[in-house]
Amino acid sequence: MAKLVVRNFSISIDGFGAGLNQGLDNPLGVRGPELFDWFFHTRTFQQMQGDTGGERGVDDDLAALSMAGIGAWIMGRNMFGPIRGPWPDDQWKGWWGDEPPYHTPVFVLTHHARKAVPMAGGTEFRFVTDGIHVALQQAKAAAGDRDIRVGGGVATIRQYLRAGLIDELHLAVAPTLLGAGEHLLHGIDMRALGYAYVKHTAGERAVAHVILRKRA
Amino acid sequence: MAKLVVRNFSISIDGFGAGLNQGLDNPLGVRGPELFDWFFHTRTFQQMQGDTGGERGVDDDLAALSMAGIGAWIMGRNMFGPIRGPWPDDQWKGWWGDEPPYHTPVFVLTHHARKAVPMAGGTEFRFVTDGIHVALQQAKAAAGDRDIRVGGGVATIRQYLRAGLIDELHLAVAPTLLGAGEHLLHGIDMRALGYAYVKHTAGERAVAHVILRKRA
Repeated sequence: MAKLVVRNFSISIDGFGAGLNQGLDNPLGVRGPELFDWFFHTRTFQQMQGDTGGERGVDDDLAALSMAGIGAWIMGRNMFGPIRGPWPDDQWKGWWGDEPPYHTPVFVLTHHARKAVPMAGGTEFRFVTDGIHVALQQAKAAAGDRDIRVGGGVATIRQYLRAGLIDELHLAVAPTLLGAGEHLLHGIDMRALGYAYVKHTAGERAVAHVILRKRA
Repeated sequence: MAKLVVRNFSISIDGFGAGLNQGLDNPLGVRGPELFDWFFHTRTFQQMQGDTGGERGVDDDLAALSMAGIGAWIMGRNMFGPIRGPWPDDQWKGWWGDEPPYHTPVFVLTHHARKAVPMAGGTEFRFVTDGIHVALQQAKAAAGDRDIRVGGGVATIRQYLRAGLIDELHLAVAPTLLGAGEHLLHGIDMRALGYAYVKHTAGERAVAHVILRKRA
């Protein structure tokens, strides 16, 4: 049975999944890159950039696993880009260049309709204006028996969590304090929603990889 | 130089340091004991209970370290006991029996004055009604060149953190989701206060022991 999953999602020790003031110069918010330092060093990430090199090990294994078996992605509009409000034109096609690392349909939640944007390598950005349930329905249809990954950002994951729709989360608790930003879990009663701790694995760069799962 | 420290303080993955509805039957709040499961299994804890047995290892080493070199404790009134408001009498002498595990003066923050309570083994509960700064001053005078430990609870640690007075924290991130309760860090900008990640160590029972320190 296809699952809705969050994988490889980094948060700080104080629980923030992104820094303040996201924008063109700060896609992850101020100091947000500290959350992903471990990921940037992996072979998986380097390959996504078209580079060779990068480190193998626990971090890399989980990074690779996070990309495997995914038949569709869902992301919030702020993860897709820095533009807020109506689309001024069709120029913006994501942060990821001509060939994004998704290689599947990517359903982008937005209040502003836009024509689908096919990219090299099988990624197609499709814009959904009817909310998270419709996006999930469309993603399921596209993914078949493969899983659907909610890429982020924080606000999008929070919406799916609150609706109890996410089956499994792999959070990477990174060795930093952001102090401020977008908090992943504040005000969400994960326990009441049926989530439970499954396991944790220590990565090479002081990251605690934590798996949470919703009880069936 | 004597330091003000928090040690061995357990929080859930979602950041709660105590459950809801603390009281006589639930000193740690509902489901709060899940936070301390790792600690209950240590040799150090078993010895504090006057028992033999318990496990050795990383968890036990840190538990033992958390009790070493401390010259005075500070705790909030709700950690001292379940009574709220004025003291009805002098009957309540803490949760810890005739010989509490502190063996030093313990400064209890309260709005309601009360005579000091000497206990067996060197612990003396002293009640401070003039706030956290006065309690710290008195604790420093009592501790000499040894460290002062803020035992808890959450509200007390938050007060000292916000005042930037805590030098070092050892948090034990326990493998559970509480969902609700007292959140340790919400609304506190640890980074702006000068705190930084120092290191983390994996315990035997899936606890991530995290050390945070204030920059000098």
